[in-house]
Amino acid sequence: MDEKKERTLTEKIVNLCLRRGILSPNSEIYGTFAGFYDFGPVGVELKRNVEASWWKTFVHMREDIVGIDGAIITHPAVWKASGHVDAFNDPLVVCTRCKKRFRADHLIEGALHINVDGMSLDHINEIVSSVKVVCPDCHGILAMEKPFNLMFKTHVGAVEDEASVAFLRPETAQLIFINFKAVQQFSRKKLPFGIAQIGKVFRNEISPRNFVFRCREFNQMEIEYFIHPAEMNDCPYLSEVSDDLLQLCTEKMQLEGKNEEIITMSVKQAVNEKIIGTTWHAYWIARFLRWFTEIGISSENLRVRQHIKDELSHYSSETWDIEYKYPWGWKELMGIANRGDFDLIQHAQHSGKDLSYFDQEKGERVVPYVIEPSAGLERLIFTILLDSYYEKSEKDEIKTVLKLNPTIAPVKVGVFPLMKKDGLKEKAREVYEMLNNYFVCEYDDAGSIGKRYARADEIGTPFAVTIDYQTLQDSTVTLRDRDSASQVRVHISELVETIRKALNLSSGGIS
Amino acid sequence: MDEKKERTLTEKIVNLCLRRGILSPNSEIYGTFAGFYDFGPVGVELKRNVEASWWKTFVHMREDIVGIDGAIITHPAVWKASGHVDAFNDPLVVCTRCKKRFRADHLIEGALHINVDGMSLDHINEIVSSVKVVCPDCHGILAMEKPFNLMFKTHVGAVEDEASVAFLRPETAQLIFINFKAVQQFSRKKLPFGIAQIGKVFRNEISPRNFVFRCREFNQMEIEYFIHPAEMNDCPYLSEVSDDLLQLCTEKMQLEGKNEEIITMSVKQAVNEKIIGTTWHAYWIARFLRWFTEIGISSENLRVRQHIKDELSHYSSETWDIEYKYPWGWKELMGIANRGDFDLIQHAQHSGKDLSYFDQEKGERVVPYVIEPSAGLERLIFTILLDSYYEKSEKDEIKTVLKLNPTIAPVKVGVFPLMKKDGLKEKAREVYEMLNNYFVCEYDDAGSIGKRYARADEIGTPFAVTIDYQTLQDSTVTLRDRDSASQVRVHISELVETIRKALNLSSGGIS
Repeated sequence: MDEKKERTLTEKIVNLCLRRGILSPNSEIYGTFAGFYDFGPVGVELKRNVEASWWKTFVHMREDIVGIDGAIITHPAVWKASGHVDAFNDPLVVCTRCKKRFRADHLIEGALHINVDGMSLDHINEIVSSVKVVCPDCHGILAMEKPFNLMFKTHVGAVEDEASVAFLRPETAQLIFINFKAVQQFSRKKLPFGIAQIGKVFRNEISPRNFVFRCREFNQMEIEYFIHPAEMNDCPYLSEVSDDLLQLCTEKMQLEGKNEEIITMSVKQAVNEKIIGTTWHAYWIARFLRWFTEIGISSENLRVRQHIKDELSHYSSETWDIEYKYPWGWKELMGIANRGDFDLIQHAQHSGKDLSYFDQEKGERVVPYVIEPSAGLERLIFTILLDSYYEKSEKDEIKTVLKLNPTIAPVKVGVFPLMKKDGLKEKAREVYEMLNNYFVCEYDDAGSIGKRYARADEIGTPFAVTIDYQTLQDSTVTLRDRDSASQVRVHISELVETIRKALNLSSGGIS
Repeated sequence: MDEKKERTLTEKIVNLCLRRGILSPNSEIYGTFAGFYDFGPVGVELKRNVEASWWKTFVHMREDIVGIDGAIITHPAVWKASGHVDAFNDPLVVCTRCKKRFRADHLIEGALHINVDGMSLDHINEIVSSVKVVCPDCHGILAMEKPFNLMFKTHVGAVEDEASVAFLRPETAQLIFINFKAVQQFSRKKLPFGIAQIGKVFRNEISPRNFVFRCREFNQMEIEYFIHPAEMNDCPYLSEVSDDLLQLCTEKMQLEGKNEEIITMSVKQAVNEKIIGTTWHAYWIARFLRWFTEIGISSENLRVRQHIKDELSHYSSETWDIEYKYPWGWKELMGIANRGDFDLIQHAQHSGKDLSYFDQEKGERVVPYVIEPSAGLERLIFTILLDSYYEKSEKDEIKTVLKLNPTIAPVKVGVFPLMKKDGLKEKAREVYEMLNNYFVCEYDDAGSIGKRYARADEIGTPFAVTIDYQTLQDSTVTLRDRDSASQVRVHISELVETIRKALNLSSGGIS
């Protein structure tokens, strides 16, 4: 795809989101509020389904992971200990003429067309002053400002002073670390085990951009997986994924300037050749790649890239991003970091509490190491939309279809009477009432049947049931498949089972 | 129950929450952070189940309601228009000696043992100065302060000034109002229809108290139901609930000093006698009373109380609370307000946008009226725990049981091998692996079988499956019912169906 066409794809997705109530900028009637978005009726169902698939896969179907749901406003000491008060900064420049502020790294990226991921603050400083990047608005001279902390600040209680300052959490991870000891005791889990959480986080981005790709308020889905430091290479689940293929872009390749090159190998090979540091790290990379394909993302659009040293966060010794091939280039879809024992040790020191784990079999106390798979829900949803969008020509018209995996489709079945008259509507209502006990259905009798199919295709509804004149004779309906547009006749009494099988939902699902 | 015993119930619930990972104060390792709580592994499942039941009942099973999920940080103009910047205040006093601040209404309530619900700010002022309530900490003289705004404030963007001020939403409702027009167009719904939302809200309470009953960060579950102003008495669903019995405490009774008295009548009667203003209001009161009993709350602990005039919020013409009989008295569990056209008109005026609805059949533009059923999720969960808690004596030991409705129970089935040896453990693992595909299960082989039953009872697990020596002979297991503690033998091949029926989950559930 050439660049122009690719840019158009993003515009088409944004347009679809606005037109069909998937996602829209917050406070539109007041002229919008940059970096904040609202999910509409279709979007909220998509969001809930993606969340539910994550929770089912990583919490309910696993005995080694339990969930929590922590507060957004948290004791300020937490963010001091975690390093966020001191180190969660973006490089900022200010225009000496118009006084507008910009993120230095984004400015360089835009002006010089170079990749700034992993560039140090000093290096960024150097470029800004040497290359003389000017203000993109008024062409004034730019000056570096002191690094800007990304946490949103507020005050708790009746007095607004230094003692009442609190922060909105910029990540859910710390809520897991501060609860680690208590959760381990509640759940009586032994190492290795994980704690999972989904929830809102807030980052005061200077330049939110690319729709919901980088926004100021979003949902994170994180697992902190705790492992005995001596057992980082003893992952019992590795065999489940060791034949999975990874498209890898390693630090070595990047340092040699082969940024866009990728090599393909199995998880087993990546571990054997020490390209990925530990088996646990390799397992979690592969397990999430697999989940992304399970919910319908094409594997050819996914690769894993190792963070180069300069790029690593203050808490990480090794990080791999799962990247997606966005219209604006390969970018992070999720990160899988090795946080080591950084966080538990920080909180133990700052709180004065013992946060170690007692290994009864070995009779020793250890501070576990942590592998952290972390993804943003809004970015994932945007990615799913980009990946599932396609267009087909039908009688000289371009029709939009979202090829959503049935598990996450907002509506599972559309129910349409061919006509509103002759008892077809009444029969269709009966079928709808029956099906809606089992699947999220939508009844629609407005406009031509073609228009109704098109409306359903556009939000990715996998199946449509049409009630026609033959239905009144023999109690059969047509069942239309979204992707092939082919139709089969099914007896109403067999409809629930047929759709259940076609949706490939387990008989009942976990409840 | 006498007061001492009742106080003990609350303490027992808090203790159970802490002991079993249901809910705990945020940042405990740093000495807690008042008014903020974290859900633990058991609590997060309970929360997700209550949410899911609400969403299924009021969104998925209804064609007249769609969901949204809006941002927490919203354009400040929204809160100016809604009245929250000017009117969302609590009366505050400050001790002239120790400088500590208190909520005047709570202080009066505590010192004089009178009910202050609905008392005007002037009246509160009057009492504080005339009765000379003193500082509860140092007995210093108290002075009124200017009313305290409950919204948490932050700044968006790189500059901290008046222009960048934003608020954390104190209610989800306004996100629905500002999206009303767009959602109506996306979803092509005709009046009457509703928009539903579940999400976090923030209120800077001066004195958070009673565990999660009044906290600073909590989840709201709200529906804004939009109705043609001329059709407030044309509720087509009223017949569904008109025989339901309501325990009512009316404004008239309260003004006559009969605060604790209640009258019982059917919904139909309450409407006919104009005790409840409109049929739509009556329907939503009854529908939520019914949902509360559907998820297991005892109806004798619920009543509805009308707000007296002084107590009404600035946006409401009539409000009814569904109250629960808490250990500390009848208090609001949820509110159902008639917001009229207040919010849509405010936002239309402040934004300059047309937020009216075009009624195609009548050919007229109208601004709909709104009935708002609004509940706090944390308070509801606390209520469910209080209501489902009971103790039984067994061999001179007091055992705790949560009689949770199976729909919301965090774990549905415990799976226990009688012993770990002789192949019982392996067989139990097989049964667990099979059942966990259908229900959230917990495998437990630690300690005596009695202890394992007790652990399961304590978190309300409805069923326990035990694998014993007979299992190895004839492939039957024992299925134990939590509430009766009775056991029946079931063949493994029939276990899924038997449990599904016993849980009273529909075959499959909506997906």
